[in-house]
Amino acid sequence: MGTAFQYVHQVRFEETDAAGIVYFARFFTWCHDAMGAMLDPLEGGYVALVRTRKLGLPAVHVEADYVAPLRFGDEVRIAVHVEKLGRSSVAMRFELTRGDDGSPVATVRHVMALTDLTAMRSVPLTDDVRAVLERHATGASA
Amino acid sequence: MGTAFQYVHQVRFEETDAAGIVYFARFFTWCHDAMGAMLDPLEGGYVALVRTRKLGLPAVHVEADYVAPLRFGDEVRIAVHVEKLGRSSVAMRFELTRGDDGSPVATVRHVMALTDLTAMRSVPLTDDVRAVLERHATGASA
Amino acid sequence: MGTAFQYVHQVRFEETDAAGIVYFARFFTWCHDAMGAMLDPLEGGYVALVRTRKLGLPAVHVEADYVAPLRFGDEVRIAVHVEKLGRSSVAMRFELTRGDDGSPVATVRHVMALTDLTAMRSVPLTDDVRAVLERHATGASA
Amino acid sequence: MGTAFQYVHQVRFEETDAAGIVYFARFFTWCHDAMGAMLDPLEGGYVALVRTRKLGLPAVHVEADYVAPLRFGDEVRIAVHVEKLGRSSVAMRFELTRGDDGSPVATVRHVMALTDLTAMRSVPLTDDVRAVLERHATGASA
Repeated sequence: MGTAFQYVHQVRFEETDAAGIVYFARFFTWCHDAMGAMLDPLEGGYVALVRTRKLGLPAVHVEADYVAPLRFGDEVRIAVHVEKLGRSSVAMRFELTRGDDGSPVATVRHVMALTDLTAMRSVPLTDDVRAVLERHATGASA
Repeated sequence: MGTAFQYVHQVRFEETDAAGIVYFARFFTWCHDAMGAMLDPLEGGYVALVRTRKLGLPAVHVEADYVAPLRFGDEVRIAVHVEKLGRSSVAMRFELTRGDDGSPVATVRHVMALTDLTAMRSVPLTDDVRAVLERHATGASA
Repeated sequence: MGTAFQYVHQVRFEETDAAGIVYFARFFTWCHDAMGAMLDPLEGGYVALVRTRKLGLPAVHVEADYVAPLRFGDEVRIAVHVEKLGRSSVAMRFELTRGDDGSPVATVRHVMALTDLTAMRSVPLTDDVRAVLERHATGASA
Repeated sequence: MGTAFQYVHQVRFEETDAAGIVYFARFFTWCHDAMGAMLDPLEGGYVALVRTRKLGLPAVHVEADYVAPLRFGDEVRIAVHVEKLGRSSVAMRFELTRGDDGSPVATVRHVMALTDLTAMRSVPLTDDVRAVLERHATGASA
């Protein structure tokens, strides 16, 4: 069993909307950035995966459940759990909590497929990608 | 039975990512904009709802299933279906297709709650909001 | 003497910031989009220029003078003036005014160079690009 | 004489455009974020300035000169110089260089006015804001 990967983001000035709270689609961006940081142990990290090896992880399915709004400057902690590893796909769950009191903010899920970005065709998870993901395989949520 | 609301978006220059395709989170933004346009029949539209009446529709749950990638300049058509109306909540389904050949791009779902943005508390759907939404109530998807 | 190209944008829900007004960097995005629309008369428009011919117009210098803030839903009109055409460069001035009363919002300037996006090297303005730009060459501002 | 404030940003996955390089308007966002980080010594930082004291620093004039393009994953270092302090205004220069070889990327300038965000009226620089800015007052560029 792996352990969740931890990532922290502080809400930026432009990330709120006309309602004064963080725009709902931004949560997906933070989770994608957390996933990229999780892949740092790859040689050259997520950047080299995309730029040098021309492999990426386009989304197949994503979803989010929102619990509490965030405002400018709030710190949000993201725990990344790898829930399921398939042949070419990976399912992740992101638990977002407030940095100040640990209260829940949102739960986000991403299912992605390792993809040859030139051919735009899914490919089997490479050994090194699978190895990094397995470090954070914590099983499905309760 | 209502009819789906139709909205069109052409992919903008900055909406693609380092993989050369539209960044996955942008789809939610387009669907939100489509929803805003759907509310135009309100007096003052979605803008007055937010700015004058201080009411909004924060997301409670959203999800997306991605079928085909999009690139700069592609035209995407969005058909907005109101699937379910609750006391203060509304569930919408957005069917995204390519403008050139009608092929499927993605299906997006938003569940939102009408919310007093000052108190940040959900309120019952107002009569005028409910009336506009009912025009596009097409029932759940097959 | 050409005439200014006219473009209209309505401020979107996510374009404001934590101060409740449009985030200052968004103005450049609208002006870029206005420039793209101005190039529509090209065969395939700005999209084909970038995707098929692999030519683009990266910024060399840009600047903005802000006169009045904008909020969600405000309509902004952008008049695009081509101020100067060089061998490979073009200087544009964008006059932004409110749609409701015509009052000034901002003046934005972009200097761009036609660029081979593969080699990332500037190239002389092609005849068709130059011809479209000349339609909107109104001379320098007073 | 003060010293430049140092800030580092790594280009994110979504920050590039259909030309494959960082979208030109993003540079302003990074510089704004660098300015926000520079104000951290204020009690509660830039966040409390905006949220609690309802003061902000809307842009009056900004400009950028672009020297070299950036791609996904590139590290950019930003040195923030306070060039001039007025009664309510501040002029900053941001020197952007590549993290790997120190080569120049861009020079950005922001002129901002301390503003009462409720009345949307400029106010004199407060003592604490002025004190933080003076730490990084390095004079005008050569």
